[in-house]
Amino acid sequence: MQKQKLLINGERLKQTLEQFADFGRTENNGVTRLSLSEQDYKVRDYFRSCCEELGMAVTVDDMGCMYATLEGSENKPPILIGSHLDTVKKGGRFDGVLGVVTGLEVVRTLVENNIKPRIPITIVNFTNEEGARFEPSMMASGVLSGKFDKSVMLKKKDAEGITFEEALQASGYAGDIENRLKEATAFLELHIEQGPILENVALSIGVVECVVGMACFEIEVTGESDHAGTTPMNMRKDALFATNNLINEIRQRLSALDEELVFTIGRVNVYPSIHTVIPNKVIFSLEARHKDPEIVSTYKDFVQGLPHLGVNEGCEVKVTKLWERDTVWFEPDICNLLEESAQSLGYSNRRMVSGAGHDAQFIASFVPTAMLFVPSINGKSHCEEELTTWEDCEKGVNVVLDTVLTLLAK
Amino acid sequence: MQKQKLLINGERLKQTLEQFADFGRTENNGVTRLSLSEQDYKVRDYFRSCCEELGMAVTVDDMGCMYATLEGSENKPPILIGSHLDTVKKGGRFDGVLGVVTGLEVVRTLVENNIKPRIPITIVNFTNEEGARFEPSMMASGVLSGKFDKSVMLKKKDAEGITFEEALQASGYAGDIENRLKEATAFLELHIEQGPILENVALSIGVVECVVGMACFEIEVTGESDHAGTTPMNMRKDALFATNNLINEIRQRLSALDEELVFTIGRVNVYPSIHTVIPNKVIFSLEARHKDPEIVSTYKDFVQGLPHLGVNEGCEVKVTKLWERDTVWFEPDICNLLEESAQSLGYSNRRMVSGAGHDAQFIASFVPTAMLFVPSINGKSHCEEELTTWEDCEKGVNVVLDTVLTLLAK
Repeated sequence: MQKQKLLINGERLKQTLEQFADFGRTENNGVTRLSLSEQDYKVRDYFRSCCEELGMAVTVDDMGCMYATLEGSENKPPILIGSHLDTVKKGGRFDGVLGVVTGLEVVRTLVENNIKPRIPITIVNFTNEEGARFEPSMMASGVLSGKFDKSVMLKKKDAEGITFEEALQASGYAGDIENRLKEATAFLELHIEQGPILENVALSIGVVECVVGMACFEIEVTGESDHAGTTPMNMRKDALFATNNLINEIRQRLSALDEELVFTIGRVNVYPSIHTVIPNKVIFSLEARHKDPEIVSTYKDFVQGLPHLGVNEGCEVKVTKLWERDTVWFEPDICNLLEESAQSLGYSNRRMVSGAGHDAQFIASFVPTAMLFVPSINGKSHCEEELTTWEDCEKGVNVVLDTVLTLLAK
Repeated sequence: MQKQKLLINGERLKQTLEQFADFGRTENNGVTRLSLSEQDYKVRDYFRSCCEELGMAVTVDDMGCMYATLEGSENKPPILIGSHLDTVKKGGRFDGVLGVVTGLEVVRTLVENNIKPRIPITIVNFTNEEGARFEPSMMASGVLSGKFDKSVMLKKKDAEGITFEEALQASGYAGDIENRLKEATAFLELHIEQGPILENVALSIGVVECVVGMACFEIEVTGESDHAGTTPMNMRKDALFATNNLINEIRQRLSALDEELVFTIGRVNVYPSIHTVIPNKVIFSLEARHKDPEIVSTYKDFVQGLPHLGVNEGCEVKVTKLWERDTVWFEPDICNLLEESAQSLGYSNRRMVSGAGHDAQFIASFVPTAMLFVPSINGKSHCEEELTTWEDCEKGVNVVLDTVLTLLAK
């Protein structure tokens, strides 16, 4: 079967993205659409109506994930396109929704060209990717892939004490376990980069090869609180100064490890945090991410050795691993297809890794999966300033369409 | 008039300290006796009854300070002995109360030896030295010396919203402004060191020459919050890493300045303090103390220059001075008398400075004043473990008694 050559309607894509952004649009042109909130019900209803208008059948599974399927002429596992419609509080107009609207625009283009696909095409909206209302993030895809226990997830509560189960029931989007995604020919997730790399090198398309592995630690430094005015410097056990030494060592060692390693000390709490009292405790998080398991392993060994570096200034240093995840490699064949599509369309592109987590990393455990990134202006996301140019959005969706057409032609 | 030679009753001193500790004694043998709390009323009542038993007249001023006076044969300004009876939450059995009980033990010794002093002797209990319930600390002595505005102090609220004025009225210890301390021949304040120096050099008595000057700054470092997984290291503006650089510079420079300089970064807040987000703001306090105004001045200049050290890693650094105080020198004649008394009693002693603030530093502005320190075991205070040996307490009170006898003999 010969491959069709089609392009999407960029103006329609833009309009659709703006229509979706109307559900929870904030004062500063961002979006607040927490999972299973009223805005989320409404956008789901709208998404369903858009799909049904195209003749797609919409089903919902027991985690609230929505699947809109355009029938195929052959009885094959569908080509899956999608992402998530929930946002963080005061998030942006692109994160997640772009991947879902991609599916819509691809199907609209097929339908308006009277193409009945050989393989069914399913647009998916995964519930609670952000984890902003109910932790953890990527909740539903985690359950679908067996990474998370459904019964545990149902009991997760939001800040007001409402459980995920209660919110799901109230939403009208509690569906049937039989409807869960079980298999697919491929899963294609277009997402904004949420980082500055593509913009920085002035490229429009990133073909994502993996979601990098990471390990997160908590480091507790215990010294002694004494009076700031009466304790000579050489008789102190200052947990903050010991922490400062540790951070020096961490920066020096990890900077030298590999330039692609990213490491962050994000959460820091100093106790008692009174200006006239020498700190007796500092607790801080340290996480680092890299695609190469050997580098992650070297990093982990180094962190475990922090208590023995001899820079503690009399304080005790305790290291606890909070969690880790291995690098998830996407399907090379699908990556190649996406890359070939970008090339054939004349879009500047590169291979890259994802430092952030996405539903695709869980789905990759049972479906041939790959992701595509488009540039985030100033690398910003999870904020109202989140921005991707309409042109880059259009390019990203065209790459997905072209790859779908390739898959359909095979 | 020939100087008398007398010693106090060490056993009685110990019993008295323990009796006073019964007002608010905690499970772990500490004391919680916040200013103008019920425990404070009770200890005040008990203190008054002890004084009245000795034939002393007790008056109270408009800030609740108590003055118990043993009449003198000459109409002279009194010799003032005292400190404060309030404690911090879960404080110790010695901080403050030792200075008040010193007065009681001195007068008891005079009375039991049938000595009618030439000069009146007044025991003082200053209200709210700790500032633990109502900020600031040294509130009443600050008002008496004109450092604080009374009308502002009356409006200060505790954690429950009760004003100092309301608490003072409710206590029954709101007295007359006419009773305020106006002049005195000398003020002698015996206090625990609250630091480890005397214990470390195995001396019993510290003659305090001054309360050191200090300056306290707030330093605000502003960077940019970005995603911990998607932002390459060389594209970050990490406020925590910039802060770490600043702390390195601060430690290096201030350590080299003078070994007696003490400096503390006590309060540190990191924002947003989420493990997956690069910190965009760190606000920390920096204070340093030294007796020499030139060293304090060099320190202040250095801190003001922190934004220009070139270690900001793209972050903005803002320095705000929160407050400063000059070194308060005590009266050299009184210091000499205390030292001579310690020597004549054969007690090991040294001159030292006070890194902490005390009522004496305010009273010194209008009364010839000096302080005496006795060792704090492990340098601990403001905690239940606060401890000074009975023997050192006894030595300290004997030095005060001997100095009083010298002043009476002049």
